[in-house]
Amino acid sequence: MGCSTYYFGAGPAALPDEVKQQIQKDINLYADTGISILELSHRSEQFTSIITSAQSLLRGLYAIPKNYQIIFMAGGATLQFDAVALNLVGNAKHASYLDTGFWSRKSAGLASKYVDIKFVQGLKDEHEKISCVEPEQWSVDPETAYLHVTPNETINGVEFVGVKKMDVPVVADLTSCILMQDIDISDYGVVYAGVQKSLGIAGLSVVIVREDLMDRVSEKTPDLLRYDLHAKENSVVNTCPVFACYVTRLMLDWVARNGGIKMMVEQANMRAKLLYQAIDSNSKMINNVCEENRSVINVAFNSPDAQVVEDLLVAASQQGLIGLQGHRHAGGIRASMYNATPMSAVKKLVKLIEAA
Amino acid sequence: MGCSTYYFGAGPAALPDEVKQQIQKDINLYADTGISILELSHRSEQFTSIITSAQSLLRGLYAIPKNYQIIFMAGGATLQFDAVALNLVGNAKHASYLDTGFWSRKSAGLASKYVDIKFVQGLKDEHEKISCVEPEQWSVDPETAYLHVTPNETINGVEFVGVKKMDVPVVADLTSCILMQDIDISDYGVVYAGVQKSLGIAGLSVVIVREDLMDRVSEKTPDLLRYDLHAKENSVVNTCPVFACYVTRLMLDWVARNGGIKMMVEQANMRAKLLYQAIDSNSKMINNVCEENRSVINVAFNSPDAQVVEDLLVAASQQGLIGLQGHRHAGGIRASMYNATPMSAVKKLVKLIEAA
Repeated sequence: MGCSTYYFGAGPAALPDEVKQQIQKDINLYADTGISILELSHRSEQFTSIITSAQSLLRGLYAIPKNYQIIFMAGGATLQFDAVALNLVGNAKHASYLDTGFWSRKSAGLASKYVDIKFVQGLKDEHEKISCVEPEQWSVDPETAYLHVTPNETINGVEFVGVKKMDVPVVADLTSCILMQDIDISDYGVVYAGVQKSLGIAGLSVVIVREDLMDRVSEKTPDLLRYDLHAKENSVVNTCPVFACYVTRLMLDWVARNGGIKMMVEQANMRAKLLYQAIDSNSKMINNVCEENRSVINVAFNSPDAQVVEDLLVAASQQGLIGLQGHRHAGGIRASMYNATPMSAVKKLVKLIEAA
Repeated sequence: MGCSTYYFGAGPAALPDEVKQQIQKDINLYADTGISILELSHRSEQFTSIITSAQSLLRGLYAIPKNYQIIFMAGGATLQFDAVALNLVGNAKHASYLDTGFWSRKSAGLASKYVDIKFVQGLKDEHEKISCVEPEQWSVDPETAYLHVTPNETINGVEFVGVKKMDVPVVADLTSCILMQDIDISDYGVVYAGVQKSLGIAGLSVVIVREDLMDRVSEKTPDLLRYDLHAKENSVVNTCPVFACYVTRLMLDWVARNGGIKMMVEQANMRAKLLYQAIDSNSKMINNVCEENRSVINVAFNSPDAQVVEDLLVAASQQGLIGLQGHRHAGGIRASMYNATPMSAVKKLVKLIEAA
């Protein structure tokens, strides 16, 4: 297998080869430190520079306004499902969650420990095709603490891009679509993402939070889940995940050097177009999401004939295309194509679908 | 600098060269996966095998009884300061904390959000020497939820080894001394450690928890801080820090191959003996901890003459001995010597102290 293998897993996701090579060098000796990046202190000036540089790159890529803080926190997005509520509910009696599928319901479920949940309808089903409810039609109580949205649902491959300016803060889980959607951060109160898809390795989250929302935090919030403390201490409240922060800085630099978000979105669209064309052209294959809400990141499809699915997975594996099994809750096939996905791997998969 | 450099930092700490070399290889291609260890899915069989093997190694090293679960959690020990209280307070009115210095007070401070704290005197000061109160003399209310202890305080270099069997569960923060103290796990209810000292890289904790204590968890505990959920899901509740778990498995394997805990303790004692002898033999140097409670892991010392300290730090740096500044709350000099510390680096430092 080796270099001819390509990994379509939903995350942790593939990293660009040049990033992996840089990491190998820095494990031997990092910059002028005399030590390995794996040994670098969270209190060292070199680590401060990693954090500052990562913040600056991300701020540049998304043109993040000055009244937003960028923080890095240990743990993945599921920990943020609790953190969002603990930090943002304040005195409100309920919080609202746009229901677009598995992950939006999961995030609401974890938040329901702290506050009543109001679901907002996010999906509709017309002519056997699923589509997203337009932001203009979201029914949100103005008294609610916030509206939480999940713009890309990885399991069924449903995606919408952007929200509308609203009176309540919009909180977005961008775990699977950060740096893959061209959005205006000023439309949101908070966006957060586990970084293991297009932005690094598992075990770290990035949170972009509007400063005026940081005074709502509950006193019973664990220190390490507080946005205000992380902002105050510039993400070094304690021994933070040094190596994971470093990999995220490398990934941000890679995106910036490769054309920024505009180019990432363009390439994602090209990959997805090819793949959906192949699926739609083969009558054995099914994808029931309407065109405008098909995820360009996680392409999920299936066949009424289980043998077709099995044969395709085997053929793909023989050609070094792996990680294509659908999510354990959905079955079928899923190709997750984050920013490091080469077009050559997509073309190989397209040929296999055509031949299926 | 390069290979002649040795890093005495308090953590993240130095890793053995052979572990770093293995990591470099596995970043290129991990086992039979066809992909990098950085890309490995938390749901893959290869990752399950990493977790199982790490648990088995740790269980063997400490002869951990069957009624204890070994779990891995994202985040460091400071997150555990909250988690301990959230998981273990139950219906109790107070929890007890043995006061041995900065870290024991810090852990109590974070827990005080959830429960009243009773401090138990852990240090005494006689003839200008600090020593630890013997476990037989700890004054613990039998109604308390648990007694929390910090057997090695890294800032002032104070250490005690082992506790006594008690009626209340003893909870120990072993962050700085795991795999460096020969203790009987059955004396404890829970032990936990951030792994970045002798057991891996920053961003992960290991928790060893007695099964009967897992039903005390508060319903308001964030899912990702729950011991019972981690035990049930074998540490894969969500996308966990895959790479950090992998490094911990390598470190456990390294300890097992190098003589286990007995040998680690022996080498730690040898390193510390040399260093304290040099400190005691130089009248310009001060260490005010009594012999039996001097940490063999973090050796903190100072001089009434600030110039002596500065000169020693400069001379050390010139010889490639770095990370020797005392903690920002204590000043002076601190040599942190975790399991990967070679005797040759200690001998170099000893010569510099002798010449100071």
